[in-house]
Amino acid sequence: MKNRYFQLLEQRPSGDLLPLGEVIENLVFNDQGLIPVITQDATSKDVLMMAWMNLSALKKTLATGRMTYWSRSRNAFWVKGESSGHTQALVQISFDCDGDAILCQVNQQGAACHTGRANCFYLKVDGHNQHVQVIGDSA
Amino acid sequence: MKNRYFQLLEQRPSGDLLPLGEVIENLVFNDQGLIPVITQDATSKDVLMMAWMNLSALKKTLATGRMTYWSRSRNAFWVKGESSGHTQALVQISFDCDGDAILCQVNQQGAACHTGRANCFYLKVDGHNQHVQVIGDSA
Repeated sequence: MKNRYFQLLEQRPSGDLLPLGEVIENLVFNDQGLIPVITQDATSKDVLMMAWMNLSALKKTLATGRMTYWSRSRNAFWVKGESSGHTQALVQISFDCDGDAILCQVNQQGAACHTGRANCFYLKVDGHNQHVQVIGDSA
Repeated sequence: MKNRYFQLLEQRPSGDLLPLGEVIENLVFNDQGLIPVITQDATSKDVLMMAWMNLSALKKTLATGRMTYWSRSRNAFWVKGESSGHTQALVQISFDCDGDAILCQVNQQGAACHTGRANCFYLKVDGHNQHVQVIGDSA
């Protein structure tokens, strides 16, 4: 899983700048051409959802500033909020040490989850590890 | 990608309780038997890293309260911090609407990233989409 390009970046000092295009070309996509994306609310820092991008979706997201994923079920671009109006405006995008995950901080319009809940992680394990509790009602 | 079990949960009201074992058995693991895990600092809410668990790693994490991933490069359990001392104590675990991603909030001891940086997402795209900046020095 180790990517030589990102291994060489590990020792770079804080503040060093790399060309964006070069970094993107070296990201690790899986055998379906996808990379996982974590989407976090830029203000509350709540993790809103996890989805996937291919290289084109990443470039579209960077070019438009609107979060654009790759829908694995529809096998198509998925401009978040295109039908629901619950758009996500990109604030900050970061790559991880291995170049195999993306973190996006966004300004979320409305609910992030398709169920109408504020975020997708609404199934929470209780403190006794006995139950999972549903948090928040669907719209 | 739609999982019937999780689709049926969507309409459950807030506060509803489900047996943990039942939820876990219905999670969606990929064809390598893995599910993505987002690890977030419980206090700062910074996203620390993204890694993977198989069903056994998830059960170990729940049983021990210590974050235990599946290392794809070593093909073995990866008890976070076992060699570095940079352990992660589980605070809260949540599943997403589709049952195909896990969010863990943890108390992080030391650095989350193997480079010695506080978290793995230290390669940040600048505001002009021209460069990626290295944030923080390696240990």
